[in-house]
Amino acid sequence: MKTFDEALDYLLSKAIPTAKTEQVPIHQALGRTLAQDITSTLNVPPHHNSMMDGYAVRSTEVVAAKDFAVSQRIAAGSVGEPLMVSTVARIFTGAPMPEGADAVVMQEEAVEKEGVVTFSVESVTKKQNVRHIGEDIAVGDVILAKGHKLRPQDLGLITSIGLGKVSVYKPLVIATFTTGDELVEPGEKADAGKIYNANRYVLAGLVPQLGFELIDLGRVPDCLDATIDVLEQAATVADVVITTGGVSVGDEDHIKPAVDSIGHLDMWKVKMKPGKPIAFGEVAGKPFIGLPGNPVSAFATFNLFARPFLLAMQGQHHCMIEPIWLKAGFDWTKVGFRRDFVRARLENREQETRVTLYPNQGSGVLTSTVWADGLAVIPEDTMIAKGDLVAYYPFNDMR
Amino acid sequence: MKTFDEALDYLLSKAIPTAKTEQVPIHQALGRTLAQDITSTLNVPPHHNSMMDGYAVRSTEVVAAKDFAVSQRIAAGSVGEPLMVSTVARIFTGAPMPEGADAVVMQEEAVEKEGVVTFSVESVTKKQNVRHIGEDIAVGDVILAKGHKLRPQDLGLITSIGLGKVSVYKPLVIATFTTGDELVEPGEKADAGKIYNANRYVLAGLVPQLGFELIDLGRVPDCLDATIDVLEQAATVADVVITTGGVSVGDEDHIKPAVDSIGHLDMWKVKMKPGKPIAFGEVAGKPFIGLPGNPVSAFATFNLFARPFLLAMQGQHHCMIEPIWLKAGFDWTKVGFRRDFVRARLENREQETRVTLYPNQGSGVLTSTVWADGLAVIPEDTMIAKGDLVAYYPFNDMR
Repeated sequence: MKTFDEALDYLLSKAIPTAKTEQVPIHQALGRTLAQDITSTLNVPPHHNSMMDGYAVRSTEVVAAKDFAVSQRIAAGSVGEPLMVSTVARIFTGAPMPEGADAVVMQEEAVEKEGVVTFSVESVTKKQNVRHIGEDIAVGDVILAKGHKLRPQDLGLITSIGLGKVSVYKPLVIATFTTGDELVEPGEKADAGKIYNANRYVLAGLVPQLGFELIDLGRVPDCLDATIDVLEQAATVADVVITTGGVSVGDEDHIKPAVDSIGHLDMWKVKMKPGKPIAFGEVAGKPFIGLPGNPVSAFATFNLFARPFLLAMQGQHHCMIEPIWLKAGFDWTKVGFRRDFVRARLENREQETRVTLYPNQGSGVLTSTVWADGLAVIPEDTMIAKGDLVAYYPFNDMR
Repeated sequence: MKTFDEALDYLLSKAIPTAKTEQVPIHQALGRTLAQDITSTLNVPPHHNSMMDGYAVRSTEVVAAKDFAVSQRIAAGSVGEPLMVSTVARIFTGAPMPEGADAVVMQEEAVEKEGVVTFSVESVTKKQNVRHIGEDIAVGDVILAKGHKLRPQDLGLITSIGLGKVSVYKPLVIATFTTGDELVEPGEKADAGKIYNANRYVLAGLVPQLGFELIDLGRVPDCLDATIDVLEQAATVADVVITTGGVSVGDEDHIKPAVDSIGHLDMWKVKMKPGKPIAFGEVAGKPFIGLPGNPVSAFATFNLFARPFLLAMQGQHHCMIEPIWLKAGFDWTKVGFRRDFVRARLENREQETRVTLYPNQGSGVLTSTVWADGLAVIPEDTMIAKGDLVAYYPFNDMR
């Protein structure tokens, strides 16, 4: 048996980052992975500018109750003249400071009448209400690194240095199929002995949610030839092949012989719960991941193993998520030799956030993953008492 | 000035949930909002079944070293015969238990030879390795409530009760535009005094990320007639209109008179930082939200005000996110009368998670939102010392 960390390290060591890139316009780049460092050729802001609507002044000239002539008016988007001595410039938020001015008095602190303004403030300090050239970004700064997954604020930052397009990796194409003669599709009638094919639809959510392209090859009968056919098809169209079911050692499972016939497959028992049986290998040169058939195990192992592997192949530099350490709101007394990823969510009482567990942690119980907002880790050979710190991984961080 | 809570409460009180629904197949339902309760007409699992590959037995019959005839073989998807006394059934994971059997012995604890099996275990307890009918879901259970936003595991759960389609709300249509003559588009040359239109691309990320349909009406010149024209167009095509910029009291701002000419607009100064000036009103019967022009303020107020308002209009029942209470890794000594939403991220040292701050919290500094993974709250009139608990809102929870 492999430990969880051994299995994950091995998997990540086999992830070969994609080399396929394309240029996309910024407004289509959400969720894409940068294939280039973004280095600024500009200062942001490009000039000293006003943080307020008000009056640009020479700070040394300002004293209470003194009159100033308003010698010019500078709107955002326009450029003023050098500021004449003993005058001020009417200025608006974002407008560049005129040469000679070094501070802005807010309009709320000013009274203007017939081109003459008086301030209610005693004085103003140099640089007050002024945003400085290059304060946000200086020429030559790497503002975002290759491998970064783009969020809305990142699109704004890239825009702010004037870039209209970026180089990103093409989305990985993931082919999935599910196995099991006991499975029927939703909307169909389930005869005695049959169950609905939940895994197919969980994968149809998980794969696109991470920004990958999904090719859903449906359900494959429990038979060797059909399994080989679909594997060959999957390896032709996709970068990675993922299945659920058919990876235990029972003699009804055809995944292992099918993969071995056109590639190779390692079956792992990983010291984790849920999700013990995992398979990893290669079909016709493409990575193959076999997740357990049990829906909770499939969901957990996708997030814990397939996700970091796929993100690494997508070229992302943050494949692993960091836990949040929080106090347990539960006792855990069943010491086990496997690492337990329990379905959990957070509960606030006053100013304390605690991790709570779904009462039924059975791995057949898909409702636990629906009730939960994340997974908490019960380490191997460990008991947890209320108030102990546990590592919590939010599902929202797995998207 | 309104407090943050007053402004948010007022906004939410004005959110009228959409009534537009449609039926979608499960595999297209990711991220959609349920317009119906999902009530189960099935038990899941539909029958007692085996959790293992092994042998279905009468638990009272099992003693060590006793021989049993294997009287039948039950694969997943098939249904067995009632179990003959003193025999066992070969059974596979997920297969229904035959009548009479009440436990499963794992195949690892059995040796089968020519139709006869011996177990290495001394005994087996009733129900061992058996999943029970209705263990996950019982007939009549509401498994997901109206207003729930669908995640991958939810799609799996809905599938598991056989539903192939669900009723969801149609995505809200959000029209956006940005104002400001100082703005140019990325890819264009920025003349002196001009800056790039970051807000447009931040909104082009934020709006679709929440599952809404975006109609981006671009940038509008700082002029009253043009502003009225685009407002009319926006109100015709969209459910909600959102702008950035043009909502301060400076005389270059045309949003207020434009909205008032075909609806009404309230300008608020909210006791918060970043993002003081917010506008909320109505244009031609559609809600209008005017965010500040400053990119950090626009980003923060979108997430803090527009997001919960839009989710409420989308019919979602969890519009507000809960904070995670964590220890501050910083000191905050500038007591202010406004609530401060500082750009923050988490840092782990051993088993402790702390909130750290971006050094430059200036509201012009968009890099702070890119460095950050969330917002931490500095309440009004409050100092924070290292180790104090602060409320942290992850950006990942705002998607």
